[in-house]
Amino acid sequence: MHPFDEAIALTPLGDDHFEGRTTPAYWNMVGPFGGITAATLLNAVLQHPLLLGTPRAMTVNFASAVPQGAFRVTARPVRTNRSTQHWLVEQWAQEDGQDALVTTATVVTAAPRTTWSGTDMPAPEQGGPGNDVKPLIIDSFTPWLRQYAVVPLVGSLPERWDERVATDSLSRLWVRKARPRALDFCALAAACDVFFPRVWLKRAEQVPAGTVTMTVYFHADAAQIAAAGDDWLLAQAQGQEFRNAFADQSGQIWRADGLMLATTHQLAYYRQ
Amino acid sequence: MHPFDEAIALTPLGDDHFEGRTTPAYWNMVGPFGGITAATLLNAVLQHPLLLGTPRAMTVNFASAVPQGAFRVTARPVRTNRSTQHWLVEQWAQEDGQDALVTTATVVTAAPRTTWSGTDMPAPEQGGPGNDVKPLIIDSFTPWLRQYAVVPLVGSLPERWDERVATDSLSRLWVRKARPRALDFCALAAACDVFFPRVWLKRAEQVPAGTVTMTVYFHADAAQIAAAGDDWLLAQAQGQEFRNAFADQSGQIWRADGLMLATTHQLAYYRQ
Repeated sequence: MHPFDEAIALTPLGDDHFEGRTTPAYWNMVGPFGGITAATLLNAVLQHPLLLGTPRAMTVNFASAVPQGAFRVTARPVRTNRSTQHWLVEQWAQEDGQDALVTTATVVTAAPRTTWSGTDMPAPEQGGPGNDVKPLIIDSFTPWLRQYAVVPLVGSLPERWDERVATDSLSRLWVRKARPRALDFCALAAACDVFFPRVWLKRAEQVPAGTVTMTVYFHADAAQIAAAGDDWLLAQAQGQEFRNAFADQSGQIWRADGLMLATTHQLAYYRQ
Repeated sequence: MHPFDEAIALTPLGDDHFEGRTTPAYWNMVGPFGGITAATLLNAVLQHPLLLGTPRAMTVNFASAVPQGAFRVTARPVRTNRSTQHWLVEQWAQEDGQDALVTTATVVTAAPRTTWSGTDMPAPEQGGPGNDVKPLIIDSFTPWLRQYAVVPLVGSLPERWDERVATDSLSRLWVRKARPRALDFCALAAACDVFFPRVWLKRAEQVPAGTVTMTVYFHADAAQIAAAGDDWLLAQAQGQEFRNAFADQSGQIWRADGLMLATTHQLAYYRQ
């Protein structure tokens, strides 16, 4: 079983409830990688017998670090219209022997439709990094980083943590799973949280930082996502504002051939 | 009473419940202006006796048009940490004699902290439109538009609906309430939904369109927002991707002196 599928696996308990378990492969500093939590909560919606259509939007709020071990996910279709459906998702886990809410999410799904389409944001690069480039797998720092292979293009981690404030916090990279696995909605949601904190790049200082809330807009349908296979994705993110302990980020994920797959935004806290 | 305050007014019913009522001043085509709904739901959080800190992030999901008349808002603090708090908010109204969920929202609030701050997105213009410029108040189309005075700078409504696809969908404008009212968190949330659908600008075609979900990141604290008074705000928005009935938008709201107040994102549906 691929470590990603192991991490997002859920056992249906009936009545909107699912059970899952954190895995060492996707561990971050004090809990699992936020992207895997987003993917797991989305997986509950995708497995729900009342699901209408496919994901169009998701907001995940990281209320507390998910503790190691078992957790419960509740996914409720709170409003079903003719072609759209609204979901409330909660993740609960044991904290000091007490049942505690650790993550909330809302998801919008919609039946497929075909209309006029266009883009305002063409991919700044296409075709993948090329076979001559040796991808980077970071095998230090936190475990989940080993799950991805990356080729930084713009705005890599500062070479020196010299606290020289950068003019911008734009990062662009090729990314794919270190161990190949075909892309799907869950993997795409996880990839939206793959960027290191923008404040590190902006300040050239590794202050404590973590995602508080993340939103993903899924622009691609299941077939367009499946066509990405296990190929490289082009990922880009830039902070807009850093103010009094919170910084935002606006990002895009393209297929290697330039098709926009998802746009994503998040707010992260930082210290000092 | 200012029409904005009338529209967002809530009567506490106890136990996380509030009652409100739609008003003609903020009516849109089939329900109230989405921005006033966002402001109303935020108002429930701000009035809640258990509130910790001030708003940092909000996601509103427009599950169905809010019917004319009375509605109920439920705001629950579902997780309170040392310095952050997570909220689930729901809006219920009568549809064909039945109680129906029409809007959901999540809100993150946090205690004030002072840290290093910086920006990646300086205001493209400052100081307001100048006293020589006559602002536009649109008194046709839908009622809520009359609540705002605008001075378009870039990307106004197409002069001809000639279906010539534009290279981009960027709009930039000065905006303030038509009848002066000091800015606060609720008014800022409402202003984030002030843009006409990006797809109209992109396609020069007025297809049916409406916001499905909107996220606001509040970068300013209460004092920074209050300092805006009833002055002009600089508002900017651009679509990123338009695909098969859904289009996203990324936006910014600055104070007239160039301070970033909020960044905002939304996904809107469109027809054809």
